[in-house]
Amino acid sequence: MLTVLTVDEAQNRVLSSMGGKTVGAEEIDIFAALGRVLAGDIFSPGHIPPFPRATMDGFAVSSSDTFGATEDIPALLMLKGEILMGLPPPGGLAMGEAMSISTGGMLPSGSDSVVMVEHCDILGDQLAVYRPVAPLENMILAGDDFQKNEIVLRKGHLLRSQDIGLLAALGLLQVKVYKRPRVIIISTGDELVTPDKNPGPGQIRDINGYALYAQVLENGAEPHYLGLFPDRKDALLEVLQDSLHQADAILISGGTSVGRRDVTVRVLDGLPGEGVHFHGVSMKPGKPVIYATSNGMPIFGLSGNPVSAMFSFLLFVRPLLRSLQGLSPFLPHQPGVEALLDTNFSSPSGREDYVRVVLSRAKDGTYGEKPRATPVFGVSSLLQTMIKGDGYFVVPRDIEGLVEGSPVHVILF
Amino acid sequence: MLTVLTVDEAQNRVLSSMGGKTVGAEEIDIFAALGRVLAGDIFSPGHIPPFPRATMDGFAVSSSDTFGATEDIPALLMLKGEILMGLPPPGGLAMGEAMSISTGGMLPSGSDSVVMVEHCDILGDQLAVYRPVAPLENMILAGDDFQKNEIVLRKGHLLRSQDIGLLAALGLLQVKVYKRPRVIIISTGDELVTPDKNPGPGQIRDINGYALYAQVLENGAEPHYLGLFPDRKDALLEVLQDSLHQADAILISGGTSVGRRDVTVRVLDGLPGEGVHFHGVSMKPGKPVIYATSNGMPIFGLSGNPVSAMFSFLLFVRPLLRSLQGLSPFLPHQPGVEALLDTNFSSPSGREDYVRVVLSRAKDGTYGEKPRATPVFGVSSLLQTMIKGDGYFVVPRDIEGLVEGSPVHVILF
Repeated sequence: MLTVLTVDEAQNRVLSSMGGKTVGAEEIDIFAALGRVLAGDIFSPGHIPPFPRATMDGFAVSSSDTFGATEDIPALLMLKGEILMGLPPPGGLAMGEAMSISTGGMLPSGSDSVVMVEHCDILGDQLAVYRPVAPLENMILAGDDFQKNEIVLRKGHLLRSQDIGLLAALGLLQVKVYKRPRVIIISTGDELVTPDKNPGPGQIRDINGYALYAQVLENGAEPHYLGLFPDRKDALLEVLQDSLHQADAILISGGTSVGRRDVTVRVLDGLPGEGVHFHGVSMKPGKPVIYATSNGMPIFGLSGNPVSAMFSFLLFVRPLLRSLQGLSPFLPHQPGVEALLDTNFSSPSGREDYVRVVLSRAKDGTYGEKPRATPVFGVSSLLQTMIKGDGYFVVPRDIEGLVEGSPVHVILF
Repeated sequence: MLTVLTVDEAQNRVLSSMGGKTVGAEEIDIFAALGRVLAGDIFSPGHIPPFPRATMDGFAVSSSDTFGATEDIPALLMLKGEILMGLPPPGGLAMGEAMSISTGGMLPSGSDSVVMVEHCDILGDQLAVYRPVAPLENMILAGDDFQKNEIVLRKGHLLRSQDIGLLAALGLLQVKVYKRPRVIIISTGDELVTPDKNPGPGQIRDINGYALYAQVLENGAEPHYLGLFPDRKDALLEVLQDSLHQADAILISGGTSVGRRDVTVRVLDGLPGEGVHFHGVSMKPGKPVIYATSNGMPIFGLSGNPVSAMFSFLLFVRPLLRSLQGLSPFLPHQPGVEALLDTNFSSPSGREDYVRVVLSRAKDGTYGEKPRATPVFGVSSLLQTMIKGDGYFVVPRDIEGLVEGSPVHVILF
């Protein structure tokens, strides 16, 4: 019999069992790359921008020609035509000359700055400049945004909208990212029927297959739901053996009762390889989680209770899926709200309690400053606690409760 | 000439121009419904659970039969067989009887509680119960999770993983959600080339078409990128007229210079209907945004500068896209981090400054408690500020700057 672990210990065992292993990489179109993870560093193949650019509308000049210019005694420069967008300047600029330029236009050789259009007057073929400009004013140099050969994005980076824009700027329409880990989901339980059926007496519709499918999807992985399997050792063994070579991780849900959990443990211990690493974590909900590997393939035995299964997913499966995709196992920041508990809450010492709460909202529908957090009434194992709740706070193992008015950090669903 | 608005004023004009309009609804498979928005209330067609269920492994009993039971003088009950998972109990329970039951099993008529297996001994065909149970202990009643005809999820709700699980529990494999708004994206600018080309002198690759595509996607809408168009009134008018009947919103990017912006304004004012609502918002970056409607079709003229265009999207396009999908225009909570500014920062009064910052990280890769926020060095209009930055904080209009050590709320990208 394995002992019950703390949440931290269990997370460490899951991650250390994988030794930093990642799934393979694939080349994909950048239109499909939002939220994917870079499988290699990205270098800038050239300077961005590739040429000196105006950042204001005005006139390209040599700044030294404008030194000392005032409203009363403007600098007078020869107007040498116009720089059109998308074209090189019509020629270089000699001392005492200026060229009309728009934001984003290419500065001519001989110029080092742009005088804003507001600070000039055109007088026939001459330009009167009423204010001096400093060298490099109102312009950027080639490479000011990104230098040629600079590493602009690193391996393991989660691609955001701006990163997709940058890849376009670099001319990269394809990008190498980690594959989406394939996660096989298996629901077990003689009491389960598929959602399209009307459950008979003693039967309920499968929930976990669907909730876990969505959780896998939400975390960048590719869910494969195999459906319902009976609570028998041979049935479980057969589907697991078939799945071992087709997945990057396997989730089995079902069997919270002692006898059924033992079946899962025995089946997992009977697979080739390392077997069961732990079963049971001192948390509520989510205590009856089992973790095993078979020749490096991670397999989770999750509770048949949907609330328990979803918390086990958040705490143990998600870090694994992030790690398989080349991300840090834990989010740099868990989106959360600082709230005030609006009731006393007691929690037995020795386990972490994940308390689902409703947050009060301001008139505009946002949570506003320091909303009140009200624990969802009812039995902790009921799905309604996940549905009505906006998120949850954690009561640490060594705390036996919190009094009304305590500040709590509510992690949002 | 329209006046420059504050961010709040501009947001209000965008939202009020739409008058709460939403896109139509469609029925989709629940496997595809994560992140979609309910187009109607969801009722529970029956009690969940449909029958009284055990929440522990043990024995179904009538609690009154256990009153007064102790270790020394246990209550002795007749064992009447076993309740199997997925089946109705083999019969009802008479006074003085008990039946074996597993977690999730259906309680027989005549029982009102479950004695935990740990508090019993089996003695032949009798059960010794060493502790009394209260009525309803270790069980839930039919409908304890959700009552028949109860509204379980409301119109406008963004579907999360647990909601997908609930829909399965209710037997709903299809769900009616708002369509994804179709957003047409148009990049204009004579200097632009497609990313697969090597830009010549004065040319750069299109960035905005790709970054905006990803932003649209990220916000639950369906991007349609039409490609590059020259900076000519007739070209812009033609593509807009073609797009008016094929989209729920149109984004045009390009033309930050005065002359080009005027072309966009004139074209938008020349379309049938209401024309331009505003151009220019007192913010940096993102000032040169134009907003128009043509017979209720929202059209944004965004800057050609990617940083400016992306901030205009976050502040003005995102609330519109959320509203079109039936969501509240603003997120109930912007994922953010409380950080400490690690330098002095000055900002002109009268405009909002959106300052991109890098956040310091703890050893485990998370931001930890009160990370330091370092503004990204360099010109505000450079894309690198969006790439290197983890997020941004806002300097309000009436603040002229912040001193080192000031607390800042950093909204994460």
